[in-house]
Amino acid sequence: MVKNKRWVYAHEFKGEPKKSDFELREEDIPALKDGEVLFEAVYLSVDPYMRMYVARIGPPQYTMIGSQIARVVESRHADYKVGNNVVAYFGWQIFTICDPDNFTTPFGMKDKPFILPDFGGLPSSLGLGVLGMPGNTAFFGFLEICKPKEGEVVVVSGAAGAVGNLVGQIAKIKGCHVIGIAGSDEKLAWLKEELKFDGVINYKTQNVAAELKKLAPKGVDCYFDNVGGEISSHVLYQMKTYGRISVCGSISSYNNDINSIPKAPVIQMALVMNQLRMEGFHVWRWMDRWMEGIKQNLQWIQEGKLVYKETVTEGFSKMPEAFIGMLKGDNTGKAVVKA
Amino acid sequence: MVKNKRWVYAHEFKGEPKKSDFELREEDIPALKDGEVLFEAVYLSVDPYMRMYVARIGPPQYTMIGSQIARVVESRHADYKVGNNVVAYFGWQIFTICDPDNFTTPFGMKDKPFILPDFGGLPSSLGLGVLGMPGNTAFFGFLEICKPKEGEVVVVSGAAGAVGNLVGQIAKIKGCHVIGIAGSDEKLAWLKEELKFDGVINYKTQNVAAELKKLAPKGVDCYFDNVGGEISSHVLYQMKTYGRISVCGSISSYNNDINSIPKAPVIQMALVMNQLRMEGFHVWRWMDRWMEGIKQNLQWIQEGKLVYKETVTEGFSKMPEAFIGMLKGDNTGKAVVKA
Repeated sequence: MVKNKRWVYAHEFKGEPKKSDFELREEDIPALKDGEVLFEAVYLSVDPYMRMYVARIGPPQYTMIGSQIARVVESRHADYKVGNNVVAYFGWQIFTICDPDNFTTPFGMKDKPFILPDFGGLPSSLGLGVLGMPGNTAFFGFLEICKPKEGEVVVVSGAAGAVGNLVGQIAKIKGCHVIGIAGSDEKLAWLKEELKFDGVINYKTQNVAAELKKLAPKGVDCYFDNVGGEISSHVLYQMKTYGRISVCGSISSYNNDINSIPKAPVIQMALVMNQLRMEGFHVWRWMDRWMEGIKQNLQWIQEGKLVYKETVTEGFSKMPEAFIGMLKGDNTGKAVVKA
Repeated sequence: MVKNKRWVYAHEFKGEPKKSDFELREEDIPALKDGEVLFEAVYLSVDPYMRMYVARIGPPQYTMIGSQIARVVESRHADYKVGNNVVAYFGWQIFTICDPDNFTTPFGMKDKPFILPDFGGLPSSLGLGVLGMPGNTAFFGFLEICKPKEGEVVVVSGAAGAVGNLVGQIAKIKGCHVIGIAGSDEKLAWLKEELKFDGVINYKTQNVAAELKKLAPKGVDCYFDNVGGEISSHVLYQMKTYGRISVCGSISSYNNDINSIPKAPVIQMALVMNQLRMEGFHVWRWMDRWMEGIKQNLQWIQEGKLVYKETVTEGFSKMPEAFIGMLKGDNTGKAVVKA
C-alpha cells in the first residue's frame, strides 16, 4: 500500500535553517470519507516567508508549511475530478486528504484548494510562481503600493528572486527606468540581458550606495524592498521627495528571532527628509482581486512581455536543501521542487 | 545708532553642535526703501529640524536659520503697521529689513511674513509653538497620517517636546489610549499628571520594549515618531496589523552626517509582519490648510482641552545654549528664546 511522506518541522530554527531541523515521516493513508478528496503533490513551493512564518504557528512538530500544485487522484467531492490540478496550502507532504469545503491553513484561514485556471499550455508549476502568489505579490504589491509613473526610477532588491524579477519586468512594462540589486554576476547578466533591466548592482562585490549614485544620479522614485537591512538603508537615502517604498520582505533579517534583529543605518531620517511613504504588505489583502493579477501576468507572458524562470529541484527528498538554498540565494527566479 | 545683532552659523557642526560653532556679529542697519519693513525680534524659535537642515543650505557663514515672532518697528509697506506682530523665517537675528512681497527663506521658498491672527489674549510666542509650526505639525502630521480612531493605542516618542506633547493631547481629545516616551521623570510626571497621558516610559532608565508590553499588551495602533533609532525599532515590533507610523523627526540621528547614520534594529520585518504603513512628512505640505490647524488648536486651548507649555530662555545672547540644550532634551514643551 502506498504511504504518505511528509517533512516535519522538527527542531526550532536557530539562525540559518539546517537539514537536521526537518524530519521525513511516512504514514498510512486513511480511506476517503464522503466529501473528501485525495490529492498528490506535483510541485512544491519553497519561499522566503516560510522562514519567518513558522514562529507564528507554534513550536515544532508539525508538517512544514507551504503551498503546492497537486493532482486529484481520488474524489468523493463533486467539484473535484480525478486529474484536476489545484494549488493548495497542503504543506510539505506528498498526499493530502481533505474536505475542500472545510479546509483551513495552519494560519487558521479558510482556503479551499483552488482548481488551476487554463494556463494556455504553460506548465502547472507556474501556479506557484508568476501565475500564483509570487506573481500577484509583484503585481499588486508593486503597482498598488508604489503607484509607479512612466519614466520614474524604480529600484528592486532581491531582483533575481521569484518576486523581484517580476517587479522589475512589470516596471519596465510600465515605462520605468529599472535598477536591480542581486548577489551574483550570473543573476545580473540575466537581469540585464534577458529581462532588459536598465542597471544592475552586485551587492556582494560592489558598493551599493556608490553604484546607485551612478545609475540614478537624480535619485529614486520607487523602491521594492525584498531584503531590508544595510542595502535598503542605502537605497532609502537616495530617494526623491515623495518616494514610495513597498516592503515585501526582509530576507536579511529572517534568520534572526525577534530579540536579535540585526542592525542597519536608521532610516527615519531618510523618510523625514524626503517625505517618503513606506508600507509593508501581505498579498492576501488583494484576495478579492486575485484573478485580475493572474490574468494580466498570463497575458503579458503570452504577449512576450513577461519572461518567467524557475529553479527546479528534482525530488521530494530534497525539500530541505531546496529551501535552505533558496534562503541563501542559490535560485534564479522561482524555486520549486518537483515531487 | 542701534545696531543689528545676528548669530552666524560659522563652523560646520560635527556631532553635537557646540557654542563655538556660532559667532555673534553686529552690523549697521541700512535705511528703509519703499515697500520695505523693519522688524525687531520678540521671540526666537529653536527647533530640532535646524540641526539637520543647515546641511541643505550650504557651507557655514550665513545667518543661522529659524523663525521668530517679530514686531514692526518701521514700515514703508501698506499692509504692515508699526506694532503688528508677525511670524517670519528671519533666522537668528534681532533686526530684519525686508520687502514682504519678495521675501524668500534660505530654502528658496516665497514666504511673506505672516501677521499673527488674534490669539484672544494669549502670548504671541505661541505663534512659534502650539499656534504655529509645531502645533500644525502635531495636528496635521498626526491626524492626517495616523488617522487615529477612538479607542486606539497611540505611542508618541519625544513626548515632552514641542510637538510630541501636543500629539499626545490631541490623541486624548480623539479618545485614544496614549503612551508617551520621554527622557526624565519630571517630564513623565508632567505628561501623566497634567496632560493625562495613560502611560509613560522613561527611555533613559527603563526598558522600552518591556514597559511597552506592559502598557499596551495587545499592541500599538499608531506611532508618532520624533526620534528614530533603537526606541522606534522597539515600538514598531509591537504594532498591530495595519498600524500607522507618522515620522516627524529622527532626533537620535541628527547629530550624524549622512555617511555616519547610527544603526538600529532593522524595521522592515516589522513592516511586513503587520503590514504597517510609515510616512515621513514636512508640515508645509498642509500650507493651504494652515489656519484650520491654528484655529482648532486655539479653540481647544480656550476650551481647556489643550495645555501649552514653553521653556523660555531669556536673552538673544543665549541662542546657542538654548538650541544645544533643546537638542539634548533640556526643554519641556516648546523651547523659545525671548530677545
